[in-house]
Amino acid sequence: MMKHRLFIGVVGDGDCGPAAAAVAQEVGRLLAEAGCALVCGGLGGVMRAACQGALSAGGQTVGILPGDSAAAANPFVAVPIVTGLGEARNVLVAKTSQAVIAVEGRYGTLSEIALALKLGRPVVGLNTWELARDGEADQRIVRAATPAEAVHLAIEMATRASGEGR
Amino acid sequence: MMKHRLFIGVVGDGDCGPAAAAVAQEVGRLLAEAGCALVCGGLGGVMRAACQGALSAGGQTVGILPGDSAAAANPFVAVPIVTGLGEARNVLVAKTSQAVIAVEGRYGTLSEIALALKLGRPVVGLNTWELARDGEADQRIVRAATPAEAVHLAIEMATRASGEGR
Amino acid sequence: MMKHRLFIGVVGDGDCGPAAAAVAQEVGRLLAEAGCALVCGGLGGVMRAACQGALSAGGQTVGILPGDSAAAANPFVAVPIVTGLGEARNVLVAKTSQAVIAVEGRYGTLSEIALALKLGRPVVGLNTWELARDGEADQRIVRAATPAEAVHLAIEMATRASGEGR
Amino acid sequence: MMKHRLFIGVVGDGDCGPAAAAVAQEVGRLLAEAGCALVCGGLGGVMRAACQGALSAGGQTVGILPGDSAAAANPFVAVPIVTGLGEARNVLVAKTSQAVIAVEGRYGTLSEIALALKLGRPVVGLNTWELARDGEADQRIVRAATPAEAVHLAIEMATRASGEGR
Repeated sequence: MMKHRLFIGVVGDGDCGPAAAAVAQEVGRLLAEAGCALVCGGLGGVMRAACQGALSAGGQTVGILPGDSAAAANPFVAVPIVTGLGEARNVLVAKTSQAVIAVEGRYGTLSEIALALKLGRPVVGLNTWELARDGEADQRIVRAATPAEAVHLAIEMATRASGEGR
Repeated sequence: MMKHRLFIGVVGDGDCGPAAAAVAQEVGRLLAEAGCALVCGGLGGVMRAACQGALSAGGQTVGILPGDSAAAANPFVAVPIVTGLGEARNVLVAKTSQAVIAVEGRYGTLSEIALALKLGRPVVGLNTWELARDGEADQRIVRAATPAEAVHLAIEMATRASGEGR
Repeated sequence: MMKHRLFIGVVGDGDCGPAAAAVAQEVGRLLAEAGCALVCGGLGGVMRAACQGALSAGGQTVGILPGDSAAAANPFVAVPIVTGLGEARNVLVAKTSQAVIAVEGRYGTLSEIALALKLGRPVVGLNTWELARDGEADQRIVRAATPAEAVHLAIEMATRASGEGR
Repeated sequence: MMKHRLFIGVVGDGDCGPAAAAVAQEVGRLLAEAGCALVCGGLGGVMRAACQGALSAGGQTVGILPGDSAAAANPFVAVPIVTGLGEARNVLVAKTSQAVIAVEGRYGTLSEIALALKLGRPVVGLNTWELARDGEADQRIVRAATPAEAVHLAIEMATRASGEGR
């Protein structure tokens, strides 16, 4: 019988700069070293860097792809899930993850943050979106300053949420 | 042959207060009077009020439902689309709409705003989320002060986007 | 408050011959004359012919499209639902319909028949797939010889199923 | 860089008898021994038996779940994908698999067979649905008499299809 490891999502831009890529790769590596499986959208940029980091440390990498072909997965995805759902696959990344780490990101990443929060999944942010309503900051994204802090917070919150019945 | 009217989405909380409901109902009424079809998630709160306003003015109302039964649609939905997709139906609301009007809202609404922006659909906000990155406000949500202004802006932007090939 | 009309699905090949098209057009026309809304996948072939028949008789036509653009809808779709879900939109056609009429069809149509039966939606067949298990014919597809008989059976079964709580 | 193993789907009833379970378990075991990853819907019956067989032989097991919780996965799923898509997750099983083995099955299984065939994925049948049109048998399901033959055929056809560009 499986004792499930934690599944942690990493979301961010599919076409990111070197700073975000370095952060994402470190996040991936630390998640793998902590025994977590990495869930992402399976494409380039932050997703690719995170998978590379995780795979380099012997971790599990799941890529939930928007298109119809596994060939679109970045080369560090071990388990390519082919959905053909387009952007609706973002919902699956959020649902499959027990916590989500957002690295920078644009509107696609914002949708994954919002879906994760809507679903009650903890979200840790590394230099990502800031949200406000009625002029008041929304504090549900837990801010981290470093990859190590982000991974620590995500695992802690996912473990707690998981204990309450995933 | 069909000459398609504009399809405008209205997104907001499924459990809203009377102020948001009044705004949504007025938005729905004005959209119908302008000859637009209303697209929404088909449930309560802002969705119900908008449908009520639209139907009262003889408009078309489409509800893209998350669950497995048309019976969950609010009573002012004329065309209930039963998806069984859960939150992934938010993507369909954004894709089916040529512009989206957001009335207040929480994380589900934020996901619809983000998806619409990701997809290049214009988004008009009525007292809704404020977004920033790197301490700088993101201006892609076009702010409106009144339902009339929101409907005017949404139709104008949807028409322009539509002219560029929907 | 809406008194919902029946929503009846018509499924079949997107690239059909003239005989199937004539049958589908007649099915669409009769559904509209009976006051039913027509649900389909929104593309060509059987879907187009059925929409044309329904629209010619003043009926409602809903096209649940697989791609990202309403422009792919056939010209007789009044309500284009843009899903971007690819083949997964077949599930939405089955769920949104209270009964399904299958006109001939290939594997995509077979998937819609199977999903409808799985979901407990009545399926009427016009020269469509025959199913068997263990050498024994499966009789769940109700066979009709003419469009008029198919429409009659579909409405009767949808009304009964609807009475039991849609 | 990942050298992807083959991903083979196993589909069948979520509530099967002991004969189908024994067949499915043997299929899972043989797939794992051949180095293939197993893809399924993640629930009980044939899915559970196949996962049990695969895991017992040290294989990879992916369960693409219809609901909102990983807790619904059978205990032999190593990678639970939480979709919340209901029956639309069947499409993802077909898309993620490079070939599909169907063990007996009812209408849900039939939908997965039909979707796989529509998508051009090879389908091997073990005592599963028989299809016909116009009174003529459809031969696209390749029949196998034993689990060993089914696994052999599925791997052979998936390898060939894969060579043509997955």
